[in-house]
Amino acid sequence: MKVVALAGGVGGAKLADGLARCLSPDELTIVVNTGDDFIHFGLKICPDLDTVCYTLAGIANPETGWGRGGETWNTLCALETLGAPTWFQLGDQDLATHLERTRRLAEGETLSEVTRFFCQRWGIRHRVQPMSDDPMQTIVETDLGDLSFQEYFVKYRFEPSVRGFRFEGAAQAKAAPGVLEAITSCDVVIFCPSNPWVSIDPILAVPGIRQALLRARVIAVSPIIGGKALKGPAAKMFSEIGIPPSAQAVALHYGSLLTGFVFDRLDAGEEMGIRSLGLRTLITDTVMKSPADRQRLATQILTFAQQELLS
Amino acid sequence: MKVVALAGGVGGAKLADGLARCLSPDELTIVVNTGDDFIHFGLKICPDLDTVCYTLAGIANPETGWGRGGETWNTLCALETLGAPTWFQLGDQDLATHLERTRRLAEGETLSEVTRFFCQRWGIRHRVQPMSDDPMQTIVETDLGDLSFQEYFVKYRFEPSVRGFRFEGAAQAKAAPGVLEAITSCDVVIFCPSNPWVSIDPILAVPGIRQALLRARVIAVSPIIGGKALKGPAAKMFSEIGIPPSAQAVALHYGSLLTGFVFDRLDAGEEMGIRSLGLRTLITDTVMKSPADRQRLATQILTFAQQELLS
Repeated sequence: MKVVALAGGVGGAKLADGLARCLSPDELTIVVNTGDDFIHFGLKICPDLDTVCYTLAGIANPETGWGRGGETWNTLCALETLGAPTWFQLGDQDLATHLERTRRLAEGETLSEVTRFFCQRWGIRHRVQPMSDDPMQTIVETDLGDLSFQEYFVKYRFEPSVRGFRFEGAAQAKAAPGVLEAITSCDVVIFCPSNPWVSIDPILAVPGIRQALLRARVIAVSPIIGGKALKGPAAKMFSEIGIPPSAQAVALHYGSLLTGFVFDRLDAGEEMGIRSLGLRTLITDTVMKSPADRQRLATQILTFAQQELLS
Repeated sequence: MKVVALAGGVGGAKLADGLARCLSPDELTIVVNTGDDFIHFGLKICPDLDTVCYTLAGIANPETGWGRGGETWNTLCALETLGAPTWFQLGDQDLATHLERTRRLAEGETLSEVTRFFCQRWGIRHRVQPMSDDPMQTIVETDLGDLSFQEYFVKYRFEPSVRGFRFEGAAQAKAAPGVLEAITSCDVVIFCPSNPWVSIDPILAVPGIRQALLRARVIAVSPIIGGKALKGPAAKMFSEIGIPPSAQAVALHYGSLLTGFVFDRLDAGEEMGIRSLGLRTLITDTVMKSPADRQRLATQILTFAQQELLS
């Protein structure tokens, strides 16, 4: 079965890793949000690509889900001594990724090429793709004004109240090479349990991707469990936009793109409502605490997708 | 006594430190070569400014003379894993300097402003100035072709044979604010025992500096001792240009700019020849193995300069 997974940060990375444990390299393409990418100290930082790659390579920090395991912080300490901004946690090993990415981009490589090279070095055999090689920036419109995603998320700890989102550069962006083809030729697309507003929507905003998805089977996994997000501001964003956060709200958010929907046992009561949207459903434990959980959830989703293919 | 010291890397930094131990902050301005500056991994690296500042701040690596003491190399190890170029030794703490400099420059600060800020943070009370805030690049013309200084010096370990030098951007560069005024209003200018070709000459190539020096008393300290350089390619460069390396060759190199010349006891035999150039001379131990040596040599040079002032 050919699968394309759309992923953002920690939650998306975990399911992507689960899928990689179930599928061979030619069966899985992971398309990653790059709307969070930013330039910091002159370096190109791609938080979601790094989280996905570190997770797949088994070198992620198991406590936080982002950054690298066994990380040291000597540069960050020295930056603090200089009074430099330290709101973005730059680990010493993580810095090497940003430095080498910046160097390769400056030499003319595309983000896709750099990512493919990093995956090789890290022993990642599945295909990991940025959604686009073109710059696209997620702007969070808040009561403090417009904030880039990293400012909103890390610097302001997602405290400002959200009024809306926009994806700067989206109109000019092109899907990265192979992304549209992967979607068009796959059996199922899985929206990982990432933030719909700022992880999946930026991918959908890349010209051509939404159109390609309209012709695909798409299963989304709800990042909202019991009205809350496990991590990050997804639930808070729904509330501030004026929508009570729930699994059903996620299904409604993606609307007619979806054919199937996966959500947590805790929200089993929403099943009728979600089915009434015309979606097939899978109710299971969606919290991934261990690598075994990731593989178990991935297996269940793939079985669910297969049933859908047969139906 | 008001003193301006022109300095390059390790040797220059040591004498600058000795002078700072003898003179009050309003008596000493240190003008540093920036011809070695380069962009690496997108970061602005200023090797000589860093060596001078780390030395004055007492945070330099006492073994090497460059880089920081107690340095760690975690980022560099991770860069190696990525197959990234590691010929330039980027320490974790040192990296913070390059990151914050790059950030501040991108925010519109000048190199002089960034340097002044760093000096404040590091507790350096004497004035340290880049020769210019404009980019100027020392190109070493070799049998391998034209090389930027860092490529020649670090990547190729100064093995290629030198044919000449040029300072790209020199014609358009302006002396950093205060540099010409400091030279014009000082009692003596000291050329530290730095490489004449690639540490002092780039400073002299900044428009206005040579002219200002023609009206100043200038004492040079020979970096050539017994026909050799303590460190680096100065002697090799003299030979390859076709000039047998010696203290006298250094004096001749600077020519009519000089009024006084300091050289090592080992080269005492050259005294007559150097005096025949119309220079006053100081013969002493010029090797600085300890901070006490730096202060001793600085004291001797300042006494020598004072005698010249009285003469």
